[in-house]
Parts: sequence; C-alpha cells; structure tokens
Amino acid sequence: MTIITSKTNPLIKKIKKLTKKKYRKDSYLIEGWHLFEEAYQAGASFGPILILEEERHRLPADVNYQVVSPAVLAEVADSKTPQGIVAEVQREVQEAPDLTQGKWLYLEEVQDPGNVGTMIRTADAAGFKGVLVSPGTADIYSPKTLRSMQGSHWHLPIYEYPLGQLAQEAHAPLLVTSLQNRSQSYLDLGPLDAVILLMGNEGQGASEQAHSLADQTVHIPMAGQAESLNVAIAAGILLFHLKNS
Amino acid sequence: MTIITSKTNPLIKKIKKLTKKKYRKDSYLIEGWHLFEEAYQAGASFGPILILEEERHRLPADVNYQVVSPAVLAEVADSKTPQGIVAEVQREVQEAPDLTQGKWLYLEEVQDPGNVGTMIRTADAAGFKGVLVSPGTADIYSPKTLRSMQGSHWHLPIYEYPLGQLAQEAHAPLLVTSLQNRSQSYLDLGPLDAVILLMGNEGQGASEQAHSLADQTVHIPMAGQAESLNVAIAAGILLFHLKNS
Repeated sequence: MTIITSKTNPLIKKIKKLTKKKYRKDSYLIEGWHLFEEAYQAGASFGPILILEEERHRLPADVNYQVVSPAVLAEVADSKTPQGIVAEVQREVQEAPDLTQGKWLYLEEVQDPGNVGTMIRTADAAGFKGVLVSPGTADIYSPKTLRSMQGSHWHLPIYEYPLGQLAQEAHAPLLVTSLQNRSQSYLDLGPLDAVILLMGNEGQGASEQAHSLADQTVHIPMAGQAESLNVAIAAGILLFHLKNS
Repeated sequence: MTIITSKTNPLIKKIKKLTKKKYRKDSYLIEGWHLFEEAYQAGASFGPILILEEERHRLPADVNYQVVSPAVLAEVADSKTPQGIVAEVQREVQEAPDLTQGKWLYLEEVQDPGNVGTMIRTADAAGFKGVLVSPGTADIYSPKTLRSMQGSHWHLPIYEYPLGQLAQEAHAPLLVTSLQNRSQSYLDLGPLDAVILLMGNEGQGASEQAHSLADQTVHIPMAGQAESLNVAIAAGILLFHLKNS
C-alpha cells in the first residue's frame, strides 16, 4: 500500500484543481461519509477516492481508493474536519427537462450556497420533479452547496436553464414569488398539477424579466413586524403548500 | 473631535470583551446600519456607538457617538465589512412570559446560530407572541444569530426557559416536532389559538424529555428521497401552518 504524503504529488495537484469552480465542468469533490454513502447508493461514477489509512475498512469492497496522509486530505478538503474521505464524482449528463409536466423549482440568481442547497433539499422532500437554476445562481457543486443539499442532487435532476428560454418553450404555469402587493396570496392558489415555482435573489427578489414572464405572481402574507422571510424559508412554505395542493 | 486609532484604548478593550459570550450578560454588540436602524426605531438603550468618520452624517442627531479608525472598528467587529458602525446595546429585562395564551416557539438545544436567528425571524413574520430558548441553545446575542435574526428580537420577546419548567407551570398545549411515525401529520392538526411549538436539536431532534412533556407530537410528511428537512425549514412550514390555522 502506498500512502501519498506529498501535497505536490501529481494526483493531489490534479484533484486540488476541483476546489475551483472553473475546473468542475465534468466532475466535483465530495467530503465526508454521509455524502459518500449517498453517492455510492445512487450509483454515482467515482474518480479517485482519497482516504485516511484508519478509515479504509469503512469502504465497500468493490471500490478503488488511494490512502493519503491527514495533511494531504486537508489540502483538498473544504471543511476543517473532512471525516476521513474526499472523493471525485463525475457529473451526470442531463437530457433536456420536460417542463410541461410535474412540479419544478426555479432558482433565479440565488447567491448563498447554503440557501441553494437547502432549497434543493426541500424540493426533494416535497417530491418536486426537478430544479432549474439560472446561470448566475451559486454553483451547486461547491462544497457549501453540497453540504446543505445533503445528496438531493442524486435524487432529482438539476438543470442550468436561462430564464429567457422559458419564453421560447412550452412549460407549466410559472409562479413567481414577489413582494409586490398586487400578487396573490399563496393561500388563495387553486390546485396545481404542474407548476414552475420561481424564487429570486436574496436582496433583489425576482427580476423584472421573471415578473414579465410570470403566469401568476404570489406572496406570503406576514403578521408581526418582520420585513421579509429568508428565501429558503419562503421556498419551504411554498414548496410544501404546493406539495399538498 | 477625537478619533480613537489605538486598539489598546481602554474603551475599545472594554467593548471588545463583548465579542465573548460570557461578557454579554447585560449588553451586546450590533454591526451595520440595518441593525442599528432597527435598534433605534425599537427605542433600544445604547452604550457606546463606534463609527467611521465618513459615516457620521448617517446618525440621528440625538445620538452620542465615538469616531474610530477602520482598524479599530474591525477589531471589535465580527464581519469583515461591518458597514461603518458597531454599537453596544443594553439587553432588556424580561418579565416572566404568560405561556397560557397565544402562540409561542420553543427552541430546544438548537446549535447553529443561523438556524436560531432564522427561526426567530420566521416566528416574528408568522405573528407569534414570543420565543423560548433552552439554556443550551446557541446564544441569541452572537453576531451570527443577530445577523440572521434581522432585528426580530426587538419585535417579540425571547426568554431563556428550561424545558423542565414547563412541567411545573400552566401553559398552552405543547406541540413537539418529532420524526417518530406515531406522531400526527401537521396537516391533521385542528385549529389552535394557543400553542407552544417545540423544535429540537439539528442532529438529535427533540429530546426524550420533550416527547414525555408533549401534549401532541407532530411531523411533516415527506415525498421524494430526502431523509429530513433542515430544522429552520421545518419550523417555517409549521409556523406558517399554525399562523393560518
């Protein structure tokens, strides 16, 4: 057994590139046992799997691995405690989504990786068909997004999908979350078999383009003195309302 | 006008103590204009207000302040960009809560400051009467909690309240969020004028003690393959369901 102990080892240098977004076009890194087990169960294609010697016994027998020193593992990990394993995972090639059916979540320019991951995880729990993200939304393959997404990207498909494309293609009714008063309360929505729920940017909300494309704008009536809801909380309330409608 | 430029100035050393929880028994620090304006509108009692020279004009005329250098401001701030102002704010003395009436949120051992702040902000938006926190819940006066709370602690009262005390006092029905199958779906809850909704720890969920004190346990039915919801998302769904029930 060879243990890689040098941070300048060619394999380590190659894997470390994946800590930068521009190198994550074909594959990305996951950290920790929870995500590894989710990936394994989902039948994901792995690249190199880096592991600490004392953690080897936890790996399934059919998996190739490379033992590394703690310092080398820390070099390619984002979290301070990567739990003994970092693995490269291939991105799946997605076919074009069929947006005429089912319930979809659209994230427009959402900036915070934690919000993006949490919303995808919640869409999964609400049984949505898939998630669309605008090109300016936080990278779904960043360590922070992956951490809050908790493996949901293996449960439902996620597509990068420019908002303008919705104007050109047939799709389910577009429901845009809005702070504008003339929008409808979500409590007054009728049952919807097919819908695309759009959540906007944390600071600006949904764009003018989103408003102009909307089949319906919607808001969450608030009591109390809070000015707004966190975008992931608002998404949670709406996703579960739509799940049950 | 005197500008404090030394990090070892006695006033700065005194204020810097408030970056540690153990010194925040009577007062705490807020950063940035959004929180300052919320505090001012709420009639909060201020201690020293530290400000950059070029930001002075933004302060109301009736407020005392101390101009400091950027390096000194950064010394007492948590965020990298404290937006020109850091202020000491006195904690309010809370009378004992009347838990027999109205809707309350109870946070039991919630560890993440962002989750704690977001849940209090959401309880505010849902018109809840107040929030109870167990002694082991993340400090509500930490910079991260204050940031995600967005001033809601000036809108509704927050009490540190040991769970065991509920056993000894009359209170509204205690609704405990549970992952156990024998709990009720939140969709089947009848209307509730008065309730205490308990959300548990991120990893362990609600404690055995909470389950034994519960008048009703409740869960959120999930579709899809997600194993669980983020605790703040679950709270958002339940708080707004109870708001509307």
